[in-house]
Amino acid sequence: MTRTPLTTLDEVQLLDTTLRDGEQMPGVSLAPAEKVEVARELDAAGVHVVEAGSACTSAGEREAIRRVASEGLDATVTSFARGVRSDVDRALDCDVDGINLVVPASDKHVETKVDSTRDDVIETTVELVEYATDHGLWVEVLGEDGSRADLDYLERLLGAGLDAGADRICYCDTVGAADPERTAEVVSRLAELGPTSLHTHDDLGFGMANVHAGLKAGADTVHGTVMGVGERAGNVALEEVAIALDRSYGVDTVELDRLYRLCRVASEVTGVALPPNKSVCGANAFAHESGIHTDGTLKDGTMYEPYPPETVGRERRLVLGKHAGRAGVQAALAEQDVAVDDDELSEVVSRVKDLGDRGKRVTDADLLAITEDVQGRERDRHVELLDLSATSGGNLPTASVRLRVGDAERVASGTGAGPVDAGLEAVRAALSGGDGSVSDGGAVSGGEGGATGGAEGDGVGGVSFELDSYHVDAITGGTDAVVTVEVDLSRGDRSVSVSSTDADITRASVVAMVDGLDRLLSAAAEGDAEAGTVSFADD
Amino acid sequence: MTRTPLTTLDEVQLLDTTLRDGEQMPGVSLAPAEKVEVARELDAAGVHVVEAGSACTSAGEREAIRRVASEGLDATVTSFARGVRSDVDRALDCDVDGINLVVPASDKHVETKVDSTRDDVIETTVELVEYATDHGLWVEVLGEDGSRADLDYLERLLGAGLDAGADRICYCDTVGAADPERTAEVVSRLAELGPTSLHTHDDLGFGMANVHAGLKAGADTVHGTVMGVGERAGNVALEEVAIALDRSYGVDTVELDRLYRLCRVASEVTGVALPPNKSVCGANAFAHESGIHTDGTLKDGTMYEPYPPETVGRERRLVLGKHAGRAGVQAALAEQDVAVDDDELSEVVSRVKDLGDRGKRVTDADLLAITEDVQGRERDRHVELLDLSATSGGNLPTASVRLRVGDAERVASGTGAGPVDAGLEAVRAALSGGDGSVSDGGAVSGGEGGATGGAEGDGVGGVSFELDSYHVDAITGGTDAVVTVEVDLSRGDRSVSVSSTDADITRASVVAMVDGLDRLLSAAAEGDAEAGTVSFADD
Repeated sequence: MTRTPLTTLDEVQLLDTTLRDGEQMPGVSLAPAEKVEVARELDAAGVHVVEAGSACTSAGEREAIRRVASEGLDATVTSFARGVRSDVDRALDCDVDGINLVVPASDKHVETKVDSTRDDVIETTVELVEYATDHGLWVEVLGEDGSRADLDYLERLLGAGLDAGADRICYCDTVGAADPERTAEVVSRLAELGPTSLHTHDDLGFGMANVHAGLKAGADTVHGTVMGVGERAGNVALEEVAIALDRSYGVDTVELDRLYRLCRVASEVTGVALPPNKSVCGANAFAHESGIHTDGTLKDGTMYEPYPPETVGRERRLVLGKHAGRAGVQAALAEQDVAVDDDELSEVVSRVKDLGDRGKRVTDADLLAITEDVQGRERDRHVELLDLSATSGGNLPTASVRLRVGDAERVASGTGAGPVDAGLEAVRAALSGGDGSVSDGGAVSGGEGGATGGAEGDGVGGVSFELDSYHVDAITGGTDAVVTVEVDLSRGDRSVSVSSTDADITRASVVAMVDGLDRLLSAAAEGDAEAGTVSFADD
Repeated sequence: MTRTPLTTLDEVQLLDTTLRDGEQMPGVSLAPAEKVEVARELDAAGVHVVEAGSACTSAGEREAIRRVASEGLDATVTSFARGVRSDVDRALDCDVDGINLVVPASDKHVETKVDSTRDDVIETTVELVEYATDHGLWVEVLGEDGSRADLDYLERLLGAGLDAGADRICYCDTVGAADPERTAEVVSRLAELGPTSLHTHDDLGFGMANVHAGLKAGADTVHGTVMGVGERAGNVALEEVAIALDRSYGVDTVELDRLYRLCRVASEVTGVALPPNKSVCGANAFAHESGIHTDGTLKDGTMYEPYPPETVGRERRLVLGKHAGRAGVQAALAEQDVAVDDDELSEVVSRVKDLGDRGKRVTDADLLAITEDVQGRERDRHVELLDLSATSGGNLPTASVRLRVGDAERVASGTGAGPVDAGLEAVRAALSGGDGSVSDGGAVSGGEGGATGGAEGDGVGGVSFELDSYHVDAITGGTDAVVTVEVDLSRGDRSVSVSSTDADITRASVVAMVDGLDRLLSAAAEGDAEAGTVSFADD
């Protein structure tokens, strides 16, 4: 591929504003400890400037900024400050290294918002820059709504800031209204004045296109947020800027192999889910479902990937569904140690597609059930849910289950944080090595906290398992919405994914867990049978 | 703002591939009726070409394509077809208007994937184009992995397709690996040959930047998907292309005011949540939380919006949180008919920020509680949850509640699809006009299906309300994860948002509902008191 130099720089600096502009996203609010956690990750990835917050916001915010500033990070730690002296003082109170000083640039902001005049704004800006630099602060001057400002005025305003001692100026497309032509026009003039940053938003989908145009026009620093969180449609995503500059232009920014981890931490603390179809961080960014893509990817990893997932600290994932092909299904079966001949494979592929056609995700358990049916194998269920009852709403959510385990019935109960958690405890108790007593099919053994029930006397022994993940998609609509619960269970080296769908979240959850367990125990029993043993107890 | 002509065209055509490339997103699978629903919305918005699926995928997929093709849409309806005659035949079986014929273009695809040679691929392409056009099909030839192909060969391949009668050719950045410079280089040469489409992916975040570069280089059609769903990081989002071309260049594509509706329908049928921070369709695209943004927006809607939300069929939304300012809080209070003086307002703002500081979203109910406290108003709760119990897991999820309503206690039970739904029914029953009997604080009145309980004899009367929305964020992690339930309730003209957090989803849901009801009834009681009445029964 042709490589056109985008910039004469070997490195572009990244300023992260996840903790300020990102946190202004409605519904997102970070406690001080959470800000510190994200700041550490940003610093570990080598982000150059961390804007820790806006000191004028609240006392809690100042506490958070102060804590980030005292972490001893390599990054320059800054606070956002409006064009008033009290904001600069509050930033100084937080012991930050610098400030991002935002002053109105468009007439709409100068006149309507702050009821001032162009000349007054320049005068105030000069005073504040001098005040801040006198106090030892690094200063970046941002012309708010700069993309919609009169360009001659913007040049005068930001030029005055640089003359007064500011370290850099910033082109702000505050409202995400600019196109790449406008960005190029403005930035090419600002970059003549001094070091220029780019602050872009994605309202028109031009966040990255404007970064591209701005760097080409002479900017040397990019503002971004992790996952593009931010007001309205969000900011440009820091991780996309980093991977794009590396892959397309060989320009350094931060440690790429920390990007996925960074996104996961940010997702966790902000509560903003990782969008499945998002560059770098999305669950599907390196997943392949369609037959031709999976087949191609199995032949050559680069066939359908722009860069190896390891680059950003991830792994490739193959997924089954209606677009499944032979190669993908065979790979998934091999992972479950199941061998099929050519005719069987064709039939399994066809049924996987049928299931996909009905709008279903195809889990490991689905694939195994289909294969058994195709091969005419009678498989005894090792674990079966015969009865389930859960109470919730009160102080002690409790669940009881009656399971058939091997030839025996086991009844057990458990308590938990909610009905689903209690259900899991009851299942664990029914399968456990048994420090409780076994009820043989009638009463539920009650207990105060934890779980009772057990495994003695039925010749099966105790079974342990891990619940590796429990996931329910966001529920919207009504209280009678059907929910799909997806669980990953494992036992030793073997793991299995299962899903279950029901309008009753308790039932969906416990059914998925029991089905998963049944799969794990079937596999273990087959393994034991080969090895000449029949028990599937852990010992 | 300067307007640079991006293209000499007044209109750019959009080809939607949500039902094909979008559906290849792992986890997404649409039933025939769902495909028809999306296709109708696309057609109503004026999308020019609807790629309905890939006829080779499965029998169910062919049924879906056939149904879309028989809808009599204005749009050209096509099927994806690989470079084999059987795929063209299957498309013909579905009665589509045309095909998107994909043939390998890069050496990686020609040699490794299909084990062929450049010349053989050209020969096959020519044969298939002739075969398809002979059968009356509109034909677009896509050179798969074209952005990584040898450009001279790509030119020969697609040129041969046009010479054989194809209607158009497509530049495919199949793997999302191209930068704008590469896109410009390739497209400028292809557009010399004939009408050229752009098919871009977002793996490097350059989906839109490449559309921009490609249109500038002479393309006249853009492939996209609703919300950018698609393999890996997804395709370019159709709605972003549409709004950006309109706002930035005055270029027509589709009916903008149908875009939001289109996204909602696509989100519902694909199960892919609308990302909160996404252009056009995100919940936050027109929401404002931070003080300076809210203040500015209240003064002038265009202050922090690139275009009015009505453009895409939406409304503006103001949200409270730690970044709240006076103007936003005052506007929210006015909406709830609550008046405060200046000092009180300052204190309310400060407490709203405190709550936000602790990482909480601030709902209407939170705001009202804070204001009452600040004003020293003793507010009697009109409805209070005294007891809650729900059973689930079995065949008939059931819940019972004991509520204090006014001076009376009411006990009622209800059944539902799950414990939460049963809880809602029990609350409704307790507040209903009462065709059941009232239990005075002891037993739960059982009933077969539906709900029993009621309102006679306590002088309060029946109260109805609407549950406008019920939302739980995706649950990940363990079964003991704390969930936050958000509900919007309304009664007549008045509505209120409430949230509740608990590890027990049943409790969180019912507490939120009862708190919301209490707020609605308090407001009604105050209104009635002014009007000289005291009952808050519906009559």
